[in-house]
Amino acid sequence: VSMAKSMSLLWGAGSPPCWRVMITLEEKKLQGYKHKLLGQVGLPAFKHGDYILNESTGACLYLENQFKSQGNKLIPDSPAEQALMYQRMMEGLTLTDKLNSVIYYEWFVPEDERHDSAVKRNREALAAELKLWEGYLQTVAAGSYLAGAFSLADAIVFPNIAYAFRFGLSVGHYPKLAKYYSLLRNRPSIKATWPPHWLASPQGFDILKDL
Amino acid sequence: VSMAKSMSLLWGAGSPPCWRVMITLEEKKLQGYKHKLLGQVGLPAFKHGDYILNESTGACLYLENQFKSQGNKLIPDSPAEQALMYQRMMEGLTLTDKLNSVIYYEWFVPEDERHDSAVKRNREALAAELKLWEGYLQTVAAGSYLAGAFSLADAIVFPNIAYAFRFGLSVGHYPKLAKYYSLLRNRPSIKATWPPHWLASPQGFDILKDL
Repeated sequence: VSMAKSMSLLWGAGSPPCWRVMITLEEKKLQGYKHKLLGQVGLPAFKHGDYILNESTGACLYLENQFKSQGNKLIPDSPAEQALMYQRMMEGLTLTDKLNSVIYYEWFVPEDERHDSAVKRNREALAAELKLWEGYLQTVAAGSYLAGAFSLADAIVFPNIAYAFRFGLSVGHYPKLAKYYSLLRNRPSIKATWPPHWLASPQGFDILKDL
Repeated sequence: VSMAKSMSLLWGAGSPPCWRVMITLEEKKLQGYKHKLLGQVGLPAFKHGDYILNESTGACLYLENQFKSQGNKLIPDSPAEQALMYQRMMEGLTLTDKLNSVIYYEWFVPEDERHDSAVKRNREALAAELKLWEGYLQTVAAGSYLAGAFSLADAIVFPNIAYAFRFGLSVGHYPKLAKYYSLLRNRPSIKATWPPHWLASPQGFDILKDL
């Protein structure tokens, strides 16, 4: 806990990149860091002493490596699980991009450059990506995490999945993702970092409901 | 070397993601892996025994973690250098995206969705990104790497920089990047993995020359 006193996080509520870092801090028992909520910004600014990390995956890797023996171990030792962990962790960033390209299309693309064909293609790409993850969860043991025990892969991927359901993803269309979501949402590190404005207004959006 | 016999790589020549994995294998003294050139494909398929990693950054992290004490150490121990290393490594992926959005615009965007305004915006975003890296190199010691000694950050970022110069980036506009490029191109791991078709036709392209 004393180590956490030299840490701070500027964060945006519900933003997957910020949430990843917060989950990792909880898992490593690094509670008590200074933090400041900056509305719904996209990127975290994590500081440990003089070192600044504003790439969420970089911050999570750094925290696990610096605090290996504190809290939960987030990079498995066995080569098979470690390979799978790194693979899923990095694939999680593609999932983030594809979610953003649908949810924030009008934010990213100026009005006179928008095309229905692009919206359709982005939605199809996201659906294909989500089907991939549905398949990954089919092959892991029932009630399991992405790569053995809870790992950095889950810290990085879970916020995307929570985000997808918040934006209306259908439990019926993606039953394995829904099961993964219900399993992890009750994990202490995730409950402790749940976006406060999601609690205040539990009703989400329906952008992804037909996906 | 015997470990490398259980490894294989399907790769595309000059593709930054594949090149990263090849540089890392050289740095870890894992020569002698099976490999197959698949033309100019974008993503590597790296296999170690039964484990498949087709995310280049994931494969590089895996190799460093599995072979920590073999070849060159690619993740620094000191917290300051380690934080910087993870930060630059992950930022390198943003650089890749921005390069691709300019170089492959017509590949990614169907003809009737193309806009001059989008091309201009992508080029400006890439120029701003490259200026950031020019700035990063301003602050490191002369003739130095991105985060202390040669690290995974360089293995991941260098192929982007080489790619940018191959596509016409101006040495005059980006002198620090040019210096970094000349320093690293003579490093044994990079010489050993230089894209064969770049040697065969040293003349590149000029898409980025005015950037």
